[in-house]
Amino acid sequence: MSTVTPEVPESSLEYAADLAAVASLLQIGAELGVDGLLDSGDSFDAAELAGHAAVPQDRAAGYLRALAAAGLITDTGTGGRFRVSDDYPALRYQAGYVSWAMNANGPFITNVREFFADGEAASRHHRRDGRRVAVSSRWIGERAFYPPVLDRVEAAGAQRVVDLGAGAGRLLIEQLRRDATRTGVALDISEAACAAAREAAVQAGVDDRLQVAVRSIESLVDDPAPIEDADVIQACFVMHDVNQDPAVLDAVLVRCREALAANGFMAVVDAVSYAPRPRERRFSALFTYLHADFMGIRLPSEQEWEDKFRAAGFAKVQCVPQVFPGGRLFVAFK
Amino acid sequence: MSTVTPEVPESSLEYAADLAAVASLLQIGAELGVDGLLDSGDSFDAAELAGHAAVPQDRAAGYLRALAAAGLITDTGTGGRFRVSDDYPALRYQAGYVSWAMNANGPFITNVREFFADGEAASRHHRRDGRRVAVSSRWIGERAFYPPVLDRVEAAGAQRVVDLGAGAGRLLIEQLRRDATRTGVALDISEAACAAAREAAVQAGVDDRLQVAVRSIESLVDDPAPIEDADVIQACFVMHDVNQDPAVLDAVLVRCREALAANGFMAVVDAVSYAPRPRERRFSALFTYLHADFMGIRLPSEQEWEDKFRAAGFAKVQCVPQVFPGGRLFVAFK
Repeated sequence: MSTVTPEVPESSLEYAADLAAVASLLQIGAELGVDGLLDSGDSFDAAELAGHAAVPQDRAAGYLRALAAAGLITDTGTGGRFRVSDDYPALRYQAGYVSWAMNANGPFITNVREFFADGEAASRHHRRDGRRVAVSSRWIGERAFYPPVLDRVEAAGAQRVVDLGAGAGRLLIEQLRRDATRTGVALDISEAACAAAREAAVQAGVDDRLQVAVRSIESLVDDPAPIEDADVIQACFVMHDVNQDPAVLDAVLVRCREALAANGFMAVVDAVSYAPRPRERRFSALFTYLHADFMGIRLPSEQEWEDKFRAAGFAKVQCVPQVFPGGRLFVAFK
Repeated sequence: MSTVTPEVPESSLEYAADLAAVASLLQIGAELGVDGLLDSGDSFDAAELAGHAAVPQDRAAGYLRALAAAGLITDTGTGGRFRVSDDYPALRYQAGYVSWAMNANGPFITNVREFFADGEAASRHHRRDGRRVAVSSRWIGERAFYPPVLDRVEAAGAQRVVDLGAGAGRLLIEQLRRDATRTGVALDISEAACAAAREAAVQAGVDDRLQVAVRSIESLVDDPAPIEDADVIQACFVMHDVNQDPAVLDAVLVRCREALAANGFMAVVDAVSYAPRPRERRFSALFTYLHADFMGIRLPSEQEWEDKFRAAGFAKVQCVPQVFPGGRLFVAFK
């Protein structure tokens, strides 16, 4: 029978309730726009939270009481000020999966009948909210796949880093902070994401070394200027979108290889189709299924990803599996 | 710092992704109306699933592939027929918490700003979906609080059982199946729920012993006919709604005590406000908070619940804690 997936331990029966509650409470924070305040680790009181979210103070106080009762924030003991608990980063990471599966993809779930009846019409009427997708991806990514990419870039001492689909630039800005001589290009098709990246770069004091390009990844085929002479071209969970037209992805990979500096490499984190390992099969099944039947995107298998890099002329391709359930880090050397 | 809540074990980092995926996939099944087919434990193929859900067969096949890849169903080995996996009931129970926290209460999360700005207007515009609330409550309840109620009723050999807020009658019908001389009354304000209870009673062959009353619990104050001479009056997670007006709940409890047969008792499963135990504090925080700030319902504390039963004249009140994170089973004897 179902012996492939390990039995869930008894203690996780309560953990399910814990995780559900944490995800719901943190999602409310994200909707209020106070996730950044919580993430900062700074202390705050109800008035500051209310000001940050632009909501009535009694409502902010009610939310704080719930967060404290759930153990997500703790009283600093001075003047009604709170700070996130020690296990907040770990809990936020776990909540990221629930947020992605239930909230970011909520429009697919709630309107599944419409998607089954007429996928194209449903896609137009029931779009996912970009911020909700970005928030859940960040919650997962900061722990699951940013670290291995950071490690690779540090180890190589890369000086020029281009991030394709950089979003709000979180990973790239961290890379610029770690090396004062490094420069970067954040490329994203979203004007709002690029504006957020510019703002975050100023706050981090790295804006003089960060160039922001409001561009699609696909546009690199005709104009590869942003990637020229890069030591590293990285892309986290965006290349499968480009694969909506496989020929375009192939052309983008060729341009990236050509543009890379000598000894340069691509670091691509992405998902494979229906990963079979027991520890990843469930989430990979959801990820693969939602992309295939709700977004019209067929994910490549691990072998197909590797073949794509080789077909683009890369000399060596490494595949690192432990980055995400169903995800892989592909490192492709020029 | 945050030492009150036990540290989450490392293995649960992957479990979070597992649970999120399971909840999302089962929620899609519930939206398609195939949760009953899955729950039955019978085998089925894509054509039957498509017929059951009234969706195209290729879409049903895509969904089945995802369920199988996630280990939720297994191939029987004959003719493309599948059946739920052995751990499906345990997984569905855990998914219930996620479904309740993220999907059933989704309208509160997604529209939190409107609820904070004008709660009454938001309550009118963004109602929760009754079926989604009922599905998630059932997934949780069948494992968490139906069993202790069943045990109490069996041990007492109760002949006449009234279920207040019976929904689709699942618990009561199980009680009638267990004792061929038992009779029951399923009382619910929802016409749809009562129709579902009637249908389920026919299917279970107990319809000759089940009376269905489309009535509010509050209406018992003026007309207690449905509860007269009951050996057991049970109510699962509905009494806190009646407590929206505490005086009405008090009056209902008085009527229940008066109506009970000699040696009869009430079995009330309900939530307490901000339960402090480490194993339940997170979910209890969410449950308490959503009721207080989004539904206008203040949950009583454990002591306040007990006091209410005593004030209504019950001779003895027992409180059983292990039924649900933040939930209690109150057994109040006439």
